[in-house]
Amino acid sequence: MNTTLATTITADPTVPAIRITREFDAPPAAVYRAHLDPDLVVRWLGPRRLTMTIQRWDAKTGGGYRYTHAGEDGTEHHFFGSFHELRENERIVQTFTYEGFPDGVAIETMTLTELPGGRTRLEAFSLGESFEARDAMIGSGMEEGVVEGYERLDEVLAG
Amino acid sequence: MNTTLATTITADPTVPAIRITREFDAPPAAVYRAHLDPDLVVRWLGPRRLTMTIQRWDAKTGGGYRYTHAGEDGTEHHFFGSFHELRENERIVQTFTYEGFPDGVAIETMTLTELPGGRTRLEAFSLGESFEARDAMIGSGMEEGVVEGYERLDEVLAG
Repeated sequence: MNTTLATTITADPTVPAIRITREFDAPPAAVYRAHLDPDLVVRWLGPRRLTMTIQRWDAKTGGGYRYTHAGEDGTEHHFFGSFHELRENERIVQTFTYEGFPDGVAIETMTLTELPGGRTRLEAFSLGESFEARDAMIGSGMEEGVVEGYERLDEVLAG
Repeated sequence: MNTTLATTITADPTVPAIRITREFDAPPAAVYRAHLDPDLVVRWLGPRRLTMTIQRWDAKTGGGYRYTHAGEDGTEHHFFGSFHELRENERIVQTFTYEGFPDGVAIETMTLTELPGGRTRLEAFSLGESFEARDAMIGSGMEEGVVEGYERLDEVLAG
């Protein structure tokens, strides 16, 4: 594995947020599109053992989405949110709720920075409503899904 | 003035959020509608000295909005956001950005509780990305707009 593509996940010490940093061997426009084109998103978002299907995907500033992750045993988990702002090839701000905990909500800001050699640094900032909710998300195994998801995204970007 | 209708605004000590509590002499359905019907919203949101016009208002889960507040001298301030979740007569979750500070975003959760006598308690939780951003919002004179806005909302609900 290319160690420059390692995913860094840290819990912010002062606000109830998770910070994720990851570099990709593709330009910002490709990384941006892979986050917003539903045909690409279903190929990488989450761990390999889950199958993603999309019920709604209105990728515009002031739009929204809903999707399902299904396991091999048929267990389904549903997620929804809104797209607060899509700033082309630079920035995505969206909300996120897991329907199993319907009163919880996080706001996610993803910033894309162009690096030399046609590469991209993605910085994600996911802010929850309390430290308990943030820590529960970290404890839920989200790290596996994030790390493996970005490995799948490498494959989509290379494909 | 009816002191039971006083607005309480507090800065959360542990997360970068503002909490607002206000009671209204109207049932939850009326308070909910006054937050989502654009013809009603323009009559109360913000202080009296500003005129609100709406460019976009798609009040549904996964929709979005944009509006302008104009002063008597013609100065305009623009705001936009998305509706993360609209749960009828109970809960509104939306995002909020002031375009003068375009990289800032807050997520606002408003919860409506029915009280005896056809009254409603509104609890608003507005979460920002940092304590600096939260404190800047409190320092910006938002209290005037919130307090006067809710007095205007009393008039809309009584009308």
